[in-house]
Amino acid sequence: MQSSKQTAVSQVAFLSVQDVLDLVSRVGIESFIKGLANTIEDDFKRWAQFDKSPRFAAHSPEGVIELMPTSDGQRFSFKYVNGHPKNTLLGLQTVTAFGVLADVDSGYPVLLSEMTLLTALRTGATSALMATYLAPANSTCMALIGNGAQSEFQAFAFRTLLGINTLRLYDVDTNASKKCQANLIQYGFDVTICTSPEQALVGADIITTCTADKRNATILTTDMVKDGVHVNAIGGDCPGKAEIDKALLLRADVFVEYEEQTRIEGDIQQLAADFPVIEMHNVIAGHTAGRTTQTQLTIFDGVGFATEDFSALCYVHKLMKQYLSVKELELIARPDEPRNLFGLFKAHNQTCKVA
Amino acid sequence: MQSSKQTAVSQVAFLSVQDVLDLVSRVGIESFIKGLANTIEDDFKRWAQFDKSPRFAAHSPEGVIELMPTSDGQRFSFKYVNGHPKNTLLGLQTVTAFGVLADVDSGYPVLLSEMTLLTALRTGATSALMATYLAPANSTCMALIGNGAQSEFQAFAFRTLLGINTLRLYDVDTNASKKCQANLIQYGFDVTICTSPEQALVGADIITTCTADKRNATILTTDMVKDGVHVNAIGGDCPGKAEIDKALLLRADVFVEYEEQTRIEGDIQQLAADFPVIEMHNVIAGHTAGRTTQTQLTIFDGVGFATEDFSALCYVHKLMKQYLSVKELELIARPDEPRNLFGLFKAHNQTCKVA
Repeated sequence: MQSSKQTAVSQVAFLSVQDVLDLVSRVGIESFIKGLANTIEDDFKRWAQFDKSPRFAAHSPEGVIELMPTSDGQRFSFKYVNGHPKNTLLGLQTVTAFGVLADVDSGYPVLLSEMTLLTALRTGATSALMATYLAPANSTCMALIGNGAQSEFQAFAFRTLLGINTLRLYDVDTNASKKCQANLIQYGFDVTICTSPEQALVGADIITTCTADKRNATILTTDMVKDGVHVNAIGGDCPGKAEIDKALLLRADVFVEYEEQTRIEGDIQQLAADFPVIEMHNVIAGHTAGRTTQTQLTIFDGVGFATEDFSALCYVHKLMKQYLSVKELELIARPDEPRNLFGLFKAHNQTCKVA
Repeated sequence: MQSSKQTAVSQVAFLSVQDVLDLVSRVGIESFIKGLANTIEDDFKRWAQFDKSPRFAAHSPEGVIELMPTSDGQRFSFKYVNGHPKNTLLGLQTVTAFGVLADVDSGYPVLLSEMTLLTALRTGATSALMATYLAPANSTCMALIGNGAQSEFQAFAFRTLLGINTLRLYDVDTNASKKCQANLIQYGFDVTICTSPEQALVGADIITTCTADKRNATILTTDMVKDGVHVNAIGGDCPGKAEIDKALLLRADVFVEYEEQTRIEGDIQQLAADFPVIEMHNVIAGHTAGRTTQTQLTIFDGVGFATEDFSALCYVHKLMKQYLSVKELELIARPDEPRNLFGLFKAHNQTCKVA
């Protein structure tokens, strides 16, 4: 039975939700984020090697389901991800995800992984990575506006990569801020809950906005933000969903992941198509400057790009072998003779009759 | 532990390769194909309800990896499928696949299934379904050119839907024909192995071509094919891969699944963009005639479309509950409080310390 299964099936490694919780706990969340950010950075440095396209999106009245494929010519990955803001009313996640890594030469998948947690981790890692190029020197304090599922991951990533330990929280729902505070203070963060966005910005070197409403909600207006700060705007990430006042964008130097996608999904969807933006791979590779002066207002208009998920999948695929006992899924049929796919039925029926 | 897992994870039903073998064996392959063809037909009848787009394709020197998404507004599906003709030299399948069915309202996946077997089954079911509208009345004999992994599924589908029991096989590799014959004769098919395509066509009412080379290989030329037959041409299914002589196409009435995709991938890629074709949903819904005379030469230029995979996933999702003990995957994180995704780490660490 075992031997018949081995010949009939090509195994695909599987990382469940519990496996990712295990993996991150064993590695340590800050070490995990550091390694992930390094992988994302290395992949941005070889940007030209990746096939890039805006994601495929199926919109419905309640939300969106997206497929985000990319490839570096050796490995192919895609992520399935949804965005349904009203899900929280039903006790479900706004964003859930899973992804697959495959071998380009054979076309065979090699890893299926949960990506709800991995997306949260890679989004934090990406934001903080970009901020290492864009945030003012010696930043110590971050305003965190929107204290939902993504907020703690931003906090850990910014502490890991930039040493930010002081957080000023604001959310329209104080319960969200309290949840975020409770999660973070036990890890030694210095956390203040604020009663307005304005109050949250006091003393902040970095402003992170990660709100979830699927509408153009202006979280930051231009009069609220002083020169010299870095705005990490990651909540405006689909058509009709923005967080940043147009006038604030016009004042700033705006940095993006992949211009073609961000024009559709990012906060810059509010601006003319020729508003100048800088793709971060140019900054990371050293072709273009990031922050050049202490008074510069920088904005990272982050929407999340397929290469970041590729990086995350490659990273956990490597790590899991070291830290976990790898589980496998019988996802791909593998008959002894490739052209004899039908023969699997015969082999199966014989096995069943014998058993 | 059990209760902690239940709250932390939203389960996704999983159909492995063995599960599909079990399911088809329990239902019986002909009953399974009949039910599948009915589902595909019903979905073609409500064609307008589906989101349709040509598939996403990532081409590489050795093959192609494709994502095929669609939705009827209530359910969303996609299939991952590769096509790597040289894989057989490595003992791997040319085509492997898996797919996901999801709920549009929440964006949550509900089923992950192997689709190497399901693709073979739905391809056979689709070909035979189309032939019920296009093949000459009282067909009894089919030429089957290309005797690889798809061939037996074509045979079973045409017997199930059209009563075809006489098969004339041809393949450039006689071992493939012998494999196909050995698989089919035990099920009562009347099978003859032929030494040339011309010989295979003798007496055939229907000609099925399902060869796998990724190049323009002219399997059928116009002088080989007499009026009145139906050609089921399914091997020419990606850019640069065709089976049917241009002159033969020009002589025939050509039927397709989704014109926009078939212009890119089908045998009609050899013809001008305004060469007239008929989409099969129009025939199935009764808006357009299929075959109208006994002398008409009809060609179904099949490439496989996303709605057929949607139909297959919905079909097995319904059937599996009846025939199998459903397995579930911990693919989607589900914290008690949706905004407290990070809290899963805390809960996990506490569980691990207790254990």
